[in-house]
This record gives sequence, C-alpha cells and structure tokens, in this order.
Amino acid sequence: MAPLVPLPQDLIPFLDRYLPRKDNDDFFVTLTYAQSLDSRISKGKGIQTIISHPETKTMTHYIRSHHDAILVGINTVLADDPGLNCRYCDHDIRPIIIDPSFKLRTIFQRSKLHENCVNGVGLAPLVVIDRHSLVEGHGIDTLVLDVDPKTGKFSWLDIFKALREKGIRSVMVEGGATVINSLLRRGEDGLFVVNSLIVTVAPIYLGSGGVEVSPREGLAVEDVSWWRGKRDVVCCGRLTSEAGRLAADEQGGEVSC
Amino acid sequence: MAPLVPLPQDLIPFLDRYLPRKDNDDFFVTLTYAQSLDSRISKGKGIQTIISHPETKTMTHYIRSHHDAILVGINTVLADDPGLNCRYCDHDIRPIIIDPSFKLRTIFQRSKLHENCVNGVGLAPLVVIDRHSLVEGHGIDTLVLDVDPKTGKFSWLDIFKALREKGIRSVMVEGGATVINSLLRRGEDGLFVVNSLIVTVAPIYLGSGGVEVSPREGLAVEDVSWWRGKRDVVCCGRLTSEAGRLAADEQGGEVSC
Repeated sequence: MAPLVPLPQDLIPFLDRYLPRKDNDDFFVTLTYAQSLDSRISKGKGIQTIISHPETKTMTHYIRSHHDAILVGINTVLADDPGLNCRYCDHDIRPIIIDPSFKLRTIFQRSKLHENCVNGVGLAPLVVIDRHSLVEGHGIDTLVLDVDPKTGKFSWLDIFKALREKGIRSVMVEGGATVINSLLRRGEDGLFVVNSLIVTVAPIYLGSGGVEVSPREGLAVEDVSWWRGKRDVVCCGRLTSEAGRLAADEQGGEVSC
Repeated sequence: MAPLVPLPQDLIPFLDRYLPRKDNDDFFVTLTYAQSLDSRISKGKGIQTIISHPETKTMTHYIRSHHDAILVGINTVLADDPGLNCRYCDHDIRPIIIDPSFKLRTIFQRSKLHENCVNGVGLAPLVVIDRHSLVEGHGIDTLVLDVDPKTGKFSWLDIFKALREKGIRSVMVEGGATVINSLLRRGEDGLFVVNSLIVTVAPIYLGSGGVEVSPREGLAVEDVSWWRGKRDVVCCGRLTSEAGRLAADEQGGEVSC
C-alpha cells in the first residue's frame, strides 16, 4: 500500500468547522466525494477512476478519523474494492455498506475489506440489507431493514436511526453516485440529513459517458469555504432547506451581460 | 442597467497568463463559462439562470476587454438576450453569433444586441449562417459558411479562419452548452482550438434537468490556477492534446482507499 502524502497543514483549520464535534451528541452526517469539472465521479459504471490529487486521499483519511463510521453503496465496493479503514485513527472506524440485495456476500472473502479485517487494520463491515435478502451462514455483520417496495431503496432516516442505536454518532458518506444523489435531496420532511458537504473538484473532464453527481432538484450550498490544493480545490459547506432556485434568485446579480 | 461591482484587483495578475497578448499575432480563443457544482449552466433549455456571484460578471467584462470579439451560439441569444458589449473596453468588440439557420433575423429588432448598437454602446453583431439560410433585406452582417451536411454544424477551423480574414485575432467564447461542449473536443487533427479555459464554479446544484457541460470524451486541463472569490472559484487552464485518461493515469495516486 502506497504511503499517504503529508497532510497539508492548512487543511486542519479549514476542515475544522465542517467536522462533527466530540462534545455534541447529535447524529452527524458528512457527505464527501471527488469529482471532475463536469461533475463525474468515474469514467463509467464500475470503472475505477483516479480523479483527485494524492492530497485528497490523505484528506479523506484525516476526515475519516473524525467519524465513527464510513458509509458507501455496494456498487462502490464492487467497482473500487476500497479498504475503508483509517490511517489517521486513534479509534476503530466502522465500514457501512448499503447493499439491499446483499451482493457483498459473494465477493467478501476476496475483498480488501476482508483483508484489512483479517490483518487487524480495519473493522469488519456492517452491511445494510433488505429483510428479503437475509440468508444464514455468511459470517458478515448485517443490519436488516425494509426497503420501500416502490423504490427498492432504504430510507436514510431508518438507516441513521438504526446506526445510532448501535452507538454510531457520526458517519462519513463517500459514494457512489446513487448514494450521493439521494443524499443531496430533501427528505419527506423537507430537510436534508447531511450536515456537512466536502467536495473535491479536479480540473479534468471525464466526459458525458461518466457517472455523474447531479441531484434531481437544485439546491444551494451555504456557509461555503474553498481550499486550494496543489491541483484541485475542495468546497466545504452545509445544505440549506431552501430550494436552490430561491437561493440563486436572492443573489441579485443580472443574468445576461 | 445595474452597475458592475468593482473588479477584485487580485483577478488582474491571476488572469494575466491566460489572456491573449497584444504583441502576439497568433489567433487566440478563450473559452469561458460559469457552472454549478453539477456542471450545469442553466436550470433548463432556454431558462435564464443566475449561477455566479456578481464578481463574475465584472470579470467577464474585464476579460472581454482583452479580445476583439465575443462569440455565442444562437440559443444563448434566444434564452438570455445578452448585450455582449464591454464596459471595460477602450476599443470596439464584435459580437459573433453562431446561427446556421439564421434565427436571429426574426428577433434582432427587439434584442439587446440591437438596442446596444442603436445606442452606440456596442458593435453590430456578425452572424455566422449557413449558405442555405441566406436571405436578403435583413440589414444584419452575416458571415456565410457551409455546415457539414452530416452534422448540420460548422467547422471551428472554418469559422476562426474566416474571422481572422476579417481582422479578428482573438475571440472570447461564452456559450452555450452546444458551443462549449464542441470546443472541449479535439479537432480532426487531434488538437484543441481553445487556448485558454476560464471556468467559474458556483457552490450550487442546478439539478439533473439542467443544461450541462460535459464533452463527449474526457480531457485534462493543464497549467491550472484557481482563484477564490467571495462565494465562487474560478479555474483557469489550458487544454492539452493528451486524453484525460492518460493525464489522469499519470497522477500516480491510488484509486481505492
């Protein structure tokens, strides 16, 4: 495993306001991903794609160290075989895999998740599966929930409530596109479940065939800060409860010029 | 017309390397646009959308002042009714409209382009039309070229060659998506016709129904600099002749973590 490049020290104060506080008991969700200028997170479905500068990987491990758990969708595991451990942690951090039909079962033994676990450098994953996918004898920790029969998807509130009951108070969500796009939408109560957004933007285009992040509806990011790295920028902010339309209209600029 | 906000003074040295030089006779193309995080330049086809902070509008006028002409596609004129003049210029700057089927003819008399021209605050536009759209008696300057019968589009090399013959040596291209996406592609000779890229990224999402910038193939931006404004960032760079894939592969980072 290649060593991490050093953490740029100005990232520490920059990220500070956007990370969960140890003295706050509220459940905290950080959504983080790296994209190209054209908002793609990979060149195509299932294709491993390097997007950001190695600094971002170091930043990712640093951010992980502030959370109890890392959450990704099963497609990200199938595409990237991520380790989902934390090289900065002074505590264990739990990988959570959203996997309604329990696909992880078939590849777990040869995954980096399994390897890290066996080697003692990562906790065993907790896999969120649908009740209908429950089978015996796989030796994987599962969290059994019910998907919405209409959409085939879990409710984020159900997931986070169940995680909280297991003692998890902060989750860093890292992808993939299905997970990210659904978290960039307001819930039925009109609120976002995401507290902080941390997006790395790399100055490349991955092209229209790539896997894209773009939520179904517009939204504005508030309390925004940008960090400039060696090649990329990082955008930190919070999601608002107002529609992007409103926020954009309130800027007061003219459109045409 | 609302006054421009003051030009942030650190934009001047920041932009300097990416603007055409007065002492260089080579034809120069600057591609510039403002996008949301999800790479949209409007909420939907034909919908005027405020994306960037008013600083960007000031920057746009400053950049225009370094060019002989501003170029947009006809759909941008129809959607935004832009003035396309320059409030920073000590010289006249020519609006160029790419409009194969000469739609401008039907709306020109009530456009801001016409108004600026009548009021002496903007040059008359030059409209690039297909030979088959040529009609008499409209009083609009036209540049007549042939579209590719297969694609219905002009060749950028044809356009820029014809503009050069008219004494234009630098063009700032401002949109819309069709124009931008086609300029983010290599020509048949494998080269880009764009010299500089200047992209404003605003921390909003416009949503998957918006009009997006994403070229057909990936590409890497080189010689990149970022500027941080009050709310947005600006990415300046140059287009390379290498595929984005190659450039990305050469970064040497690991994908999974």
